[in-house]
Amino acid sequence: MKKPYSIGVDLGGTNLRVALVSRNWEVVRKVKEPSMGMEGGDVIQLMKKAIDGLMSPEVEGIGIGVAGVLDRAENRITTSPNIPPLSGYSFNDLNYPVPVYVENDANAAALGEARAGAGRDFRNFVLMTLGTGIGGGIIYGGELLKVAAEVGHMSIVADGKKCFCGNNGCLELFASARAIIAATIEALEGGAESILRECCQGKIYRITPEDVYKAALQEGDILAREVLKEAGRYLGIGISNIINIMSPEAVILAGGLVGSWNIYVDEAIKEASKRAFKSLFQTVSIIPASLGDEAGVVGAASLVFNSGKVF
Amino acid sequence: MKKPYSIGVDLGGTNLRVALVSRNWEVVRKVKEPSMGMEGGDVIQLMKKAIDGLMSPEVEGIGIGVAGVLDRAENRITTSPNIPPLSGYSFNDLNYPVPVYVENDANAAALGEARAGAGRDFRNFVLMTLGTGIGGGIIYGGELLKVAAEVGHMSIVADGKKCFCGNNGCLELFASARAIIAATIEALEGGAESILRECCQGKIYRITPEDVYKAALQEGDILAREVLKEAGRYLGIGISNIINIMSPEAVILAGGLVGSWNIYVDEAIKEASKRAFKSLFQTVSIIPASLGDEAGVVGAASLVFNSGKVF
Repeated sequence: MKKPYSIGVDLGGTNLRVALVSRNWEVVRKVKEPSMGMEGGDVIQLMKKAIDGLMSPEVEGIGIGVAGVLDRAENRITTSPNIPPLSGYSFNDLNYPVPVYVENDANAAALGEARAGAGRDFRNFVLMTLGTGIGGGIIYGGELLKVAAEVGHMSIVADGKKCFCGNNGCLELFASARAIIAATIEALEGGAESILRECCQGKIYRITPEDVYKAALQEGDILAREVLKEAGRYLGIGISNIINIMSPEAVILAGGLVGSWNIYVDEAIKEASKRAFKSLFQTVSIIPASLGDEAGVVGAASLVFNSGKVF
Repeated sequence: MKKPYSIGVDLGGTNLRVALVSRNWEVVRKVKEPSMGMEGGDVIQLMKKAIDGLMSPEVEGIGIGVAGVLDRAENRITTSPNIPPLSGYSFNDLNYPVPVYVENDANAAALGEARAGAGRDFRNFVLMTLGTGIGGGIIYGGELLKVAAEVGHMSIVADGKKCFCGNNGCLELFASARAIIAATIEALEGGAESILRECCQGKIYRITPEDVYKAALQEGDILAREVLKEAGRYLGIGISNIINIMSPEAVILAGGLVGSWNIYVDEAIKEASKRAFKSLFQTVSIIPASLGDEAGVVGAASLVFNSGKVF
């Protein structure tokens, strides 16, 4: 007897999201808690409390999307760069009376978009999550490829700066929110002219990507525009690599930076159009995700309903 | 009634290979013809003649592996960088009385290795063909991913030199046989000391990658060693990108450059070990292909027997 709900968890690093999701992808109830900088054990306690609050006999199982590299056979996080204390943790230790499935958080978001979002009309697409870091998930033939899909840690500048992951010149060092902020601060510290100096009561270390985008768009600020365009150009290099390898029908972009579409993503599309194989670029749609913050919990919940299969 | 044989074609650019292959992957008869620099129509004529020579009522169908990007629904080559006149050609025009299947040549080689070669023991692997250029094929869950897999045209030096494909800084500009020869000639022209000056009766433009490898290995030639190590280092960057994205059980290396394993591939493995996610590198095998020149025809033939499915 199939039960009508599953619980989806998105344990991405900045916030913990837990939701009760129906079989027609409705988010019936949801909980959001800040989890940034918490100890691994505390995050697990926070998650357990949220799950307990949504648990009922009508819940078929629990799906968890978590940042990091996984050992799926063991429901274990092998490496968790965002929440280091979670490295090595197995979700089997939760001892819930229902099945628990674990997937990488960006993979879960890709599944969410495949089920109920911008990916519904595509059999083959790559989701890129553009936030503090850059993640990815690959849908092929309507199913999630259970692979790392760490597209943010593809080196695009062979001898570029060192990434925390151990590689050099990773895409996310050039195209993520963290990269945009770092480039902005560096330019301001170097004396560049910008309206952003007056931002955040002069505390430039508090500047957000939204501040940069607003300055670029509303004030036509040259520094802000250049920083966003340069990040977008690198994103385009990453996208063209993905197109040449996976030849997807769509590249779906999710995460906070999608809000800067008109400069950052436009530049990325322009760059990818110059670099990707022409015949492949002509058939790819580069579009925004549509589920916002809910993609992760919906995708995680879908792991339960179909044991990881999309169709 | 299933027939015992299929005909596999490998139309890679340098040579045309056509073989009669049995259901247990035995190459019963084979034909090899040089096709370098031929006109598109001539290559097709050459291929038809070879196929006709192997055709019989016992042949189930024809599988063709061809360099380039494909429209699989139409059996058409969209773009053929190695044999430009073939761009746009549809193999449906051959009008054979048996089914014809078309796949990218490196994808076909990956299928060949999956069926009968070094990939038999893996469900998930990426094949890289290391020759004049660099190609790829991805096997996931025992099946060929019908994607471009143009891993040689992944940019790893964002603002590196221009590739004929339109991109900049492609892996194959740094790690292919063409790259090794170009770097060797450039160094010799620049006055570098090397035993290779005496190679090929002083005609340095005739130096082959084998010459470079021999000089590096047998003579301990510094230039030769450095050129191979540098190419290997870039190959390692490409391999680590592939590991971080596809988290394969194996990366299988095919093509002429595999003969330079002890310097070129060793350096690649060393570089990839530094760059790829540790937990993913620990579980990946980096090994040579085992079918040699026959991988392409065996894989192409397998398209017929299982309509593209491996298991």
